[in-house]
Amino acid sequence: MNTNTPPASPRPGDSYVQSFARGLEVIRSFSASAPQQTLSEVAAQTGLTRAGARRILLTLQTLGYVESDGRLFRLTPRILDLGFAYLSSMPIWDLAEPVMEELVEQVRESCSAAVLDGLDIVYVLRLPTHKIMRTNLGVGSRLPAAWTSMGRVLLAGLPDDALQARLQGLIPQRFTQHTVMDMPTLLERIRQARTQGWCLINQELEEGLISIAAPLTNRAGQTVAALNISGQANRSSAEVMQATMLPALLRAAQSISRMLGTQHG
Amino acid sequence: MNTNTPPASPRPGDSYVQSFARGLEVIRSFSASAPQQTLSEVAAQTGLTRAGARRILLTLQTLGYVESDGRLFRLTPRILDLGFAYLSSMPIWDLAEPVMEELVEQVRESCSAAVLDGLDIVYVLRLPTHKIMRTNLGVGSRLPAAWTSMGRVLLAGLPDDALQARLQGLIPQRFTQHTVMDMPTLLERIRQARTQGWCLINQELEEGLISIAAPLTNRAGQTVAALNISGQANRSSAEVMQATMLPALLRAAQSISRMLGTQHG
Repeated sequence: MNTNTPPASPRPGDSYVQSFARGLEVIRSFSASAPQQTLSEVAAQTGLTRAGARRILLTLQTLGYVESDGRLFRLTPRILDLGFAYLSSMPIWDLAEPVMEELVEQVRESCSAAVLDGLDIVYVLRLPTHKIMRTNLGVGSRLPAAWTSMGRVLLAGLPDDALQARLQGLIPQRFTQHTVMDMPTLLERIRQARTQGWCLINQELEEGLISIAAPLTNRAGQTVAALNISGQANRSSAEVMQATMLPALLRAAQSISRMLGTQHG
Repeated sequence: MNTNTPPASPRPGDSYVQSFARGLEVIRSFSASAPQQTLSEVAAQTGLTRAGARRILLTLQTLGYVESDGRLFRLTPRILDLGFAYLSSMPIWDLAEPVMEELVEQVRESCSAAVLDGLDIVYVLRLPTHKIMRTNLGVGSRLPAAWTSMGRVLLAGLPDDALQARLQGLIPQRFTQHTVMDMPTLLERIRQARTQGWCLINQELEEGLISIAAPLTNRAGQTVAALNISGQANRSSAEVMQATMLPALLRAAQSISRMLGTQHG
């Protein structure tokens, strides 16, 4: 599921480099449904002229980010370097994983870390448990913040006015019969996450999926990421997960936050 | 370890969009050692003028790829969308993970998938086992192809002339006392991987690290990725790993290759 909203309309000023912005659009035009594209397809996807799309694709090819058989273009793994620049610039990348591995070992459920981007959460680390998963959420995957436990914990980290402003743009979507649809209740649940320091979501995003999240904070006490455990309702009820897994999750989150505080502020 | 060689010198022709190429360089200038940068630092890292760096950074900020407190700039998680465009355009992304989870469950060692980029392998999926790992190899990490089991299997997938041409650019590096340093032996090992359909590397990259890899092939029989299991010499010898884990690895690789063949050619 990719709920990524397009970036806010750029306001081209003196400083806006249109050709660079268009180039990034060309990269984003490739996807699961369009893994390989012709020049015309890229042009149609991005709104560029064929000549414009061609210049961008040839530049990407010169730099090794795209390869082509002459007709079809596709991205190369070098593209991952761009995201890797982000991941390796996050202190969480190094610090959190060993703690998360211990947590998975302890609770025998999968554990993930995510950050907030607008109204989405974006996965930055994920340790699956060795059970076949129905969902396939790798690094870079997005989910709607308002209906995920990590999202509510991350939204709870915003000052209340910023939180309310951000939720203005939200259009509630019914994922299951449990999805909280009205804004006052949603806001209340987010504030509850802020007060108690964690959040449990019971099948609001997907039937059968229960997850608990806790914030990861920096030295200044700001929430910089969230950590979660997700389980299946048919294996453990929400009450059992809260009773048995929440303490371990909170310990792990505190341990990572302490390291973030010491090493990187 | 990032052995990523800079892209081949671009040959700016009529079709080369210099400002786009420079913009990508700005993204890549962020890293673990430079997670936040001032305008001057970005300019120094990329060789751009301050004015040029400023235009790129402001464009990235307008698009939501960079955030700033006015002085320091840092990447946002939106950058991951660029890499996600690549990962989600790979059929392996959906198909391989369940099979890899079963494999990890069976052999109790970590399992990864990687693709070839020049003389590097790039990790596209990784399932750690729940043992604390010494190495931290997430998606997008690079290792030198010639001294990794996945790399030798991927190089073995090249036609012999392409293989020899590619190895021209290789400068052998001693990682351990076991590292194969001379090119004829290296070439022989890669050809051996081609003949036998798998490769075992015993502590050539890192003391104590043993790994076995097998190719993932498409319908046309071309090697598109590699799958590996890596273990520790102090837990299992190379002989034991080969005897106990190779059959499971080969079955998993064949099963993924079959799915690649059916679904995507």
